[in-house]
Amino acid sequence: MAGRKCVLRIGFQGERGAFSEEAARRFCGETIEPVPFTRFEEVFAALTAGSVDRAAIPIENTLHGSVHENYDHLLRFDLPILAETSVRIIHNLIANPGVKFSAIRRVYSHPVALAQCLDFFSANPQIERIPFYDTAGSVKMIAEKQLVDAAAIASSVASENYGAHILKRSIEDDRRNFTRFFLLCQRRHWARLHRKQEAGEPSKTSILFATRNSPGALFRSLSAFALRDLNLTKIESRPLRGKPWEYLFYLDFIGQENDANVQKALGHLQESADLVRVLGSYPKTC
Amino acid sequence: MAGRKCVLRIGFQGERGAFSEEAARRFCGETIEPVPFTRFEEVFAALTAGSVDRAAIPIENTLHGSVHENYDHLLRFDLPILAETSVRIIHNLIANPGVKFSAIRRVYSHPVALAQCLDFFSANPQIERIPFYDTAGSVKMIAEKQLVDAAAIASSVASENYGAHILKRSIEDDRRNFTRFFLLCQRRHWARLHRKQEAGEPSKTSILFATRNSPGALFRSLSAFALRDLNLTKIESRPLRGKPWEYLFYLDFIGQENDANVQKALGHLQESADLVRVLGSYPKTC
Repeated sequence: MAGRKCVLRIGFQGERGAFSEEAARRFCGETIEPVPFTRFEEVFAALTAGSVDRAAIPIENTLHGSVHENYDHLLRFDLPILAETSVRIIHNLIANPGVKFSAIRRVYSHPVALAQCLDFFSANPQIERIPFYDTAGSVKMIAEKQLVDAAAIASSVASENYGAHILKRSIEDDRRNFTRFFLLCQRRHWARLHRKQEAGEPSKTSILFATRNSPGALFRSLSAFALRDLNLTKIESRPLRGKPWEYLFYLDFIGQENDANVQKALGHLQESADLVRVLGSYPKTC
Repeated sequence: MAGRKCVLRIGFQGERGAFSEEAARRFCGETIEPVPFTRFEEVFAALTAGSVDRAAIPIENTLHGSVHENYDHLLRFDLPILAETSVRIIHNLIANPGVKFSAIRRVYSHPVALAQCLDFFSANPQIERIPFYDTAGSVKMIAEKQLVDAAAIASSVASENYGAHILKRSIEDDRRNFTRFFLLCQRRHWARLHRKQEAGEPSKTSILFATRNSPGALFRSLSAFALRDLNLTKIESRPLRGKPWEYLFYLDFIGQENDANVQKALGHLQESADLVRVLGSYPKTC
């Protein structure tokens, strides 16, 4: 048990060296045990079962929007949000030690990463793009096969993990590429872990709610927050398929669940919404 | 010129047989000339320059959220929305004619498609997953190389395009995978094309607006619609990076830009918003 407590096991989706692992390290420091899973659902199930201590999951990206699947899992599993962080998605050109840029003829990476570095490939037509499973896995592959004419595109963490080196940093076309992550814990641990947060820093609360009839209902729902001067930092509607005019809303606002005015706002919201679920209160950091 | 008018050239991002091409056919029928581009920006530029007649672009997906990049292009280019459609993303297992399922040892596709068919691969451990550039391109490749032990995962349009056949239909894990597309045209053609729409069907209008201070400002902005009983079908906030408390909002509502109450609502909205841009009014079909 002592050993288990010393090294936090953080579940995440993807390969070792994925951006989710970078988020996990930002949340919990370097002395973690990253535990990779293939599917998001497996990460949520592992945390629920206690086979990992925390989970780091992406919730939205500045280019690609909200990860609806993870909102669905947050609704289904009772795993509160402990913290948020924002990771800039930096794509680096990574090769084996000793390999020079002029030797590179092929670059492996996830097609989404390749597609986010088109300016680099336009400027270097001698280099062939080859799709691979994922960004970190492409570094692992070129390292294992000791390729000397190939490179990978991935995070700096992936480069370190596999003993490779970065030939060119930040070759992505658009530098406004950030992913926001949540750190989740088990419900029974939340009160203990939450108390460790610094006092005085602004808090954010994330909720989900559903309304039957969008127009007036949403306006009434938002009045619960506007009338109490609660600042919203995110609102997003998501139509419920097969249920015309029924919507799920994602809402983030400044305040803690236990604040008196937040409690009143949530009570007010419950009068007009069919469903209200508080996903967690956590320090505002992005 | 007569020839040009007969066959509409529709620009889209991706390979021939991509889901965007399926959307283009749904918008404009089978007798179109699909014109593929590598980047979304190129599609917008081509339509602006008149080298294509229309553009079909994805704007949101039920699993992956809004395509922020295309909202940015809608803001930058003056290309009004003519129509919307929703395409169910169906992943099919596709092989060359005569190839049986029992012969398949490898499956090529875009990693996102492979990752959306995990149940299929769990049930068929003899089959190796191999990442490829894109879904339609993987069909093209197995067709060109006449592979007899390999298959691809792609749309039925891709299968038809390359003379392949579908071994198994709809092998995706989650059938609630829909992408909403917009059909865009040049501003100078909008009035003529828009008038051709059937009268009496409900219309939707999409707008973008920005507010400086989210809490009260959003509530005031939405009052412009709530006070006129205008139904919202989508609302989404997007924080403007580097500008704390400044937000861009995506809003869809039922009504046409030229309706008297919509004109009043937009005027009212302009009093509280820093920026209001009408992206287009079009028949509501999803």
